[in-house]
Amino acid sequence: MTQLDVMDADEGTRVGRVMQAIRSKIAGRVLAPGAKLPSLRGFSETMGVSKSTVVEAYDRLAAEGVIQARRGSGFYVAGHAPPFSLAEMGPRLERAVDPFWVSRQSLHAGDGVLKPGCGWLPADWFPEEGLRRGLRALSRAPAETLTDYGTPLGLTPLRQVLARRLAIHGIEAGPDRIMLTESGTQALDLVCRFLVEPGDTVLVDDPCYFNFHALLRAHRVRIVGVPYTPNGPDTAAFEQVLAEHRPRLYITNSALHNPTGATLSPVVAHRVLKLADQFGLTIVEDDIFADFEPEPAPRLAAFDGLERVIQIGSFSKTLSASVRCGYIAAKQEWIEALIDQKIAASFGTGRFAAELVLAILTDGTYRKHMDGLRTRLARTMGETSARLKAMNIVPWTEPRGGMFLWCELPEGLDSSVIARQLLAEDIVLAPGNVYSLSQSASRFLRFNVAQSGDPRLFTALGRAMTTAARRGQNA
Amino acid sequence: MTQLDVMDADEGTRVGRVMQAIRSKIAGRVLAPGAKLPSLRGFSETMGVSKSTVVEAYDRLAAEGVIQARRGSGFYVAGHAPPFSLAEMGPRLERAVDPFWVSRQSLHAGDGVLKPGCGWLPADWFPEEGLRRGLRALSRAPAETLTDYGTPLGLTPLRQVLARRLAIHGIEAGPDRIMLTESGTQALDLVCRFLVEPGDTVLVDDPCYFNFHALLRAHRVRIVGVPYTPNGPDTAAFEQVLAEHRPRLYITNSALHNPTGATLSPVVAHRVLKLADQFGLTIVEDDIFADFEPEPAPRLAAFDGLERVIQIGSFSKTLSASVRCGYIAAKQEWIEALIDQKIAASFGTGRFAAELVLAILTDGTYRKHMDGLRTRLARTMGETSARLKAMNIVPWTEPRGGMFLWCELPEGLDSSVIARQLLAEDIVLAPGNVYSLSQSASRFLRFNVAQSGDPRLFTALGRAMTTAARRGQNA
Repeated sequence: MTQLDVMDADEGTRVGRVMQAIRSKIAGRVLAPGAKLPSLRGFSETMGVSKSTVVEAYDRLAAEGVIQARRGSGFYVAGHAPPFSLAEMGPRLERAVDPFWVSRQSLHAGDGVLKPGCGWLPADWFPEEGLRRGLRALSRAPAETLTDYGTPLGLTPLRQVLARRLAIHGIEAGPDRIMLTESGTQALDLVCRFLVEPGDTVLVDDPCYFNFHALLRAHRVRIVGVPYTPNGPDTAAFEQVLAEHRPRLYITNSALHNPTGATLSPVVAHRVLKLADQFGLTIVEDDIFADFEPEPAPRLAAFDGLERVIQIGSFSKTLSASVRCGYIAAKQEWIEALIDQKIAASFGTGRFAAELVLAILTDGTYRKHMDGLRTRLARTMGETSARLKAMNIVPWTEPRGGMFLWCELPEGLDSSVIARQLLAEDIVLAPGNVYSLSQSASRFLRFNVAQSGDPRLFTALGRAMTTAARRGQNA
Repeated sequence: MTQLDVMDADEGTRVGRVMQAIRSKIAGRVLAPGAKLPSLRGFSETMGVSKSTVVEAYDRLAAEGVIQARRGSGFYVAGHAPPFSLAEMGPRLERAVDPFWVSRQSLHAGDGVLKPGCGWLPADWFPEEGLRRGLRALSRAPAETLTDYGTPLGLTPLRQVLARRLAIHGIEAGPDRIMLTESGTQALDLVCRFLVEPGDTVLVDDPCYFNFHALLRAHRVRIVGVPYTPNGPDTAAFEQVLAEHRPRLYITNSALHNPTGATLSPVVAHRVLKLADQFGLTIVEDDIFADFEPEPAPRLAAFDGLERVIQIGSFSKTLSASVRCGYIAAKQEWIEALIDQKIAASFGTGRFAAELVLAILTDGTYRKHMDGLRTRLARTMGETSARLKAMNIVPWTEPRGGMFLWCELPEGLDSSVIARQLLAEDIVLAPGNVYSLSQSASRFLRFNVAQSGDPRLFTALGRAMTTAARRGQNA
């Protein structure tokens, strides 16, 4: 029999309620380890209970070791902070729209699982022969390439190639303003390590790539969203958010926005940069989808000249997700500081991945591969779009390219319900609210057209929609 | 003519002094962005100047945009926090003992530069043929291997091999308690992201691997050192530090300690774990040098059963620094949470590096390579040790294996002075204070015996020692 059992039931409930309130404050880091607990009198008023109830609750928490009494000085949160569980941070989301859960589903999906919700191309859409040829060439490379750390900035010839590629988009970076990283995600992580403090505010598009939420949660920043339109962020809302929240950083995709496939217009780009100037905002332009564009659209980094814009990218989407190689282009003094961040976080980058990317970028493989890929994606985009429209699932915009189609379900349907049902049939979907900070995209789904060729998807989708609509009518 | 010029010179100095004091507080984050500045009266007392001097200083800082006046409410630190420059954080060290500077020197060293101070093997000491064979095999791998992300935990057969290797050291991990990372450094970074908060205290050995300092600085924790003895940390000092500072984490190498080459004894291991239990300390055992051991020494992770010990490792030191593959072994629930940290920080790990490591670990290459490497290192260790002793540079302990020799210079010599002189001759040394939090190793140097074969090193070293001794006598 516990102590609670021998108490008056209501008093037991009240004590439990106070204990829970303190536990929540500790879990949510409102009360850090070592912090003093609210005074007995103060907290009894806050909770609307008697002082003796609070005394009882504090004593029990002390008995559990959650807090410690210090003679004559009150109660303090005990010991060390609990481990920083990302799953327990942030909003409590149902699994279907939890970014970590969705990532794990996609990363873990075995053979026979359809992944229209995943963010990358199927294995046979990558330049397989080019990769094999690159590996054979690498097997004959000098010993240093096979065994040594890369230089702090990373393989010079690859940075030279990247500088030329950036120049095509009007970004005058030069190889010394480019640092290689292990991935686009690591690039963003290093930028965050360098520029944001825990508690800072960071602005993202709503909707945006869901791992931005995950990464920012890991950096313990406050995330604020700005609605995304088919031409870029809603500039009126953007201005208002800047004035109100003074975010340190804005993270976005200009070329082919993830998940919407939209493209930043020149007028919006200009306005965003003007506001960024006015409010001292730094912008990270994640240009990971650059090479999917049919023709170059405006880049914030080009308009701005890498003054307050940092551009990041990688080859995970176009070349291989298995070959880890990304980059950061930024102004000189920031690159200098970012080298230290990279050394601290991962010491050197491997020469391996960089050499392989370089070989494929320079031997003609990549250009031919991307030409073919754009054509193939355009055709698939048309087919998938037509199939979805026929089911009354309507694209929000017609993307100029890329693999993503951001679609709206008929009224009354919830994409997370549909996603849950299809998961039971081994089909991984990407429900809209995974991407939406405000959770305002419950009717949306992001389709990866390259992963949506199997007719089973549409059959299962149709069945799930019918079931959900029926349930909706009965409810 | 500036305003300062028209003032009385002393008053100008006083104003400048107050401005500098505020700037330092902002740079050191004593005053965060948005924080209120000390009151005019209070700060004039603190600084021993008149209130009008403080007014003048604040006005100038406001004119510079460093602080902002808010009507009727005082002065506040302006805008956002400055970027988090690791180089400007932490103690101001002269370049020769700055961990970032030393890392960059080693990583950047071109052909013809001798690197007895660097932390890895020369390219021709790695299993070059095995790596080439592995790459050729990889060029024939299934397309998924070449293009897809790895699973969240990483390649299962490699985790199975790692589990068997850990079992040899008495660590019962099982593949589900092992997560692959991109490197040993990333492994440590993920553990820190998970377990430490900015402001926490973390314990390291003094001396220890210098990048621990860099990484911990990036995590904004307070670093405390414990003296290292030839049998492990000084347990009396260890207990005292635990009682006084209550560190969250202790990071160490058990097998072949970097930089000293010492080995943890069973009695010290047991004592360390008992104290860790008593004070709620978590331990990260960086086992990156495991395979250099002639026979297995005690492991904290084995004694403890992965309860409060996390083990990390990689193949950068034995196989290739270019192939990025590390791991974390920890208890189940921590591995679960660390997966989220990995997804947030780098999304997937590449399958590429993991497949290559797996091939080399399982085709017999690795065993033969390590057998040969241990023999070669033992011989080289003996030779280098003898050469150094002949010069009156004395090994602190005789390491059982590995590549590092931690040596003491004759009295009166400063290793950073010697290091600076040799750098001018294209020889990169590793002066002791790079590894020492307390900066108490000014007479030590760490030699990598595998990088110390060139007679030029000893000639240059002898010359530098003579010069330094002569200067010392003249001083």
